[in-house]
Amino acid sequence: MNRIGFIGLGAMGAPMAACIATADLDLAVFDLQPENTAPLADLGATVAASPAEVAEGADALVLMVVNAEQAEDALFGENGAAEKFGPGAAIVLMSTVGPGPVRELNGRLEQQDLRLLDAPVSGGVARAEKGDLLIMTGGPGDLFVELRPVLEAMGSTVVHCGEAAGDGQSVKLVNQLLCGIHIAAAGEAIAYAEALGLDARSVFETIRHGAANSFMLEDRGERMLQEAFLPAKSAMDIFVKDMGLVREAASDSGFETPLSDAAHALYREGSELGMGREDDSGIVRVFQRKDS
Amino acid sequence: MNRIGFIGLGAMGAPMAACIATADLDLAVFDLQPENTAPLADLGATVAASPAEVAEGADALVLMVVNAEQAEDALFGENGAAEKFGPGAAIVLMSTVGPGPVRELNGRLEQQDLRLLDAPVSGGVARAEKGDLLIMTGGPGDLFVELRPVLEAMGSTVVHCGEAAGDGQSVKLVNQLLCGIHIAAAGEAIAYAEALGLDARSVFETIRHGAANSFMLEDRGERMLQEAFLPAKSAMDIFVKDMGLVREAASDSGFETPLSDAAHALYREGSELGMGREDDSGIVRVFQRKDS
Repeated sequence: MNRIGFIGLGAMGAPMAACIATADLDLAVFDLQPENTAPLADLGATVAASPAEVAEGADALVLMVVNAEQAEDALFGENGAAEKFGPGAAIVLMSTVGPGPVRELNGRLEQQDLRLLDAPVSGGVARAEKGDLLIMTGGPGDLFVELRPVLEAMGSTVVHCGEAAGDGQSVKLVNQLLCGIHIAAAGEAIAYAEALGLDARSVFETIRHGAANSFMLEDRGERMLQEAFLPAKSAMDIFVKDMGLVREAASDSGFETPLSDAAHALYREGSELGMGREDDSGIVRVFQRKDS
Repeated sequence: MNRIGFIGLGAMGAPMAACIATADLDLAVFDLQPENTAPLADLGATVAASPAEVAEGADALVLMVVNAEQAEDALFGENGAAEKFGPGAAIVLMSTVGPGPVRELNGRLEQQDLRLLDAPVSGGVARAEKGDLLIMTGGPGDLFVELRPVLEAMGSTVVHCGEAAGDGQSVKLVNQLLCGIHIAAAGEAIAYAEALGLDARSVFETIRHGAANSFMLEDRGERMLQEAFLPAKSAMDIFVKDMGLVREAASDSGFETPLSDAAHALYREGSELGMGREDDSGIVRVFQRKDS
């Protein structure tokens, strides 16, 4: 793996691609918004004019696009990457799209002798900038081993979760299920403390070190108390999408997720109230509105 | 504060009373089950035959009974403690009963010139044995200062949450809201991983150190994976009761708690399935049953 293509230079994708550019790897990039490519060009990356151009001569193509539709379009749309791959090239799908779409994509790619590694990430922009992501992969073990140097440029913890494309997505969804519920629980707790007439900051300081603690209570709870919702560190709409994927995969498996259902409804309510692009910690305001 | 009475030597109360007995304080105890008093007698405590006898000559009476009804009975029932208190004696209510009942009790006690400190605890039996509880108090600041040596015999973190009897309960309920949701979330996550065909242990090890983490995921998640539901370290019925108190106080304040509602329904379902006296981590089985 020497020549790497990268499509999708958003808030997460840009620092991830930068990690590859600064590793000992040849990088070509494409983004739907051409202005996103300049910082990568400064790091020595080749800027391509289409997905097909990125794929040409690439040993592996990393996709960090917004959703499954964009991934499909980058691969099979007009000037799509799939036209130009050499046989045996590897596609690394790092977006969170759920296991179903990954399996479907994998079927199409196999017909062209292309190999897919499913590799969603966790950690947010700050850790992406440090190459410190958690990367959860699904796919053949030998493909994982081949791609490991590329993944380790972006992540400090790179885990092979299973032999099937989609297994990385499934683990990511378990992660998102917990994160999504914990953020909403922090919002319910802080707004509840206020509704009971307590000083929410004191309550937070009293209980955060005990059994009530969570990573999200510490992290998002602090933002809730500071009312620091803009600029978003992690937009509420990500959880509208991801809790939707959690529930979709549950429903495909005939499994009930009452807490995820409740959390998803809260994120959707926040988004409908116009908070979708603000920080997900803004969920606390959905609860505050419920305090009559 | 030299002579301390203590009523309610259950799983939590017994080690808490033992901490007082081994501190430099005179202790008299009463329990509805006389056999519970023997270990305290061995530590030098006086065993009383009724709440009234415990109260006689006591500077403070600690109540660690099961619920508000038992507290009222110990104080105002037949041979109740209230008959025998000297004026200005202090009652320390350490059970979790919710803020409403504490305010009501406080009204009755004030009429008799008796003072109430509301002081629920968090931490479980293991920490109770080490005098390592978190104690959340509500009541007049001077009463808190007077009682501090007694509280510090039982707790390593003793917090004055507010001037009103009931404020300790309110903070405890915020704590329980988070704990109850986090345990149920851990159950939903682990059963979901299984439903998606993943190895739940590997998923747990992959995500526990990241943003998905909570104290309860670490603690109860481990018990869920080991299926260690008996003997109970913390019975599921405690959360049936406590999530009920969380919702009751919310409803009294006109506040909506959708996640607590969902978690409460799950604990009740577990209890109705006969798991009420087993460990609360057994909630994972309620989700596993939902996997059709």
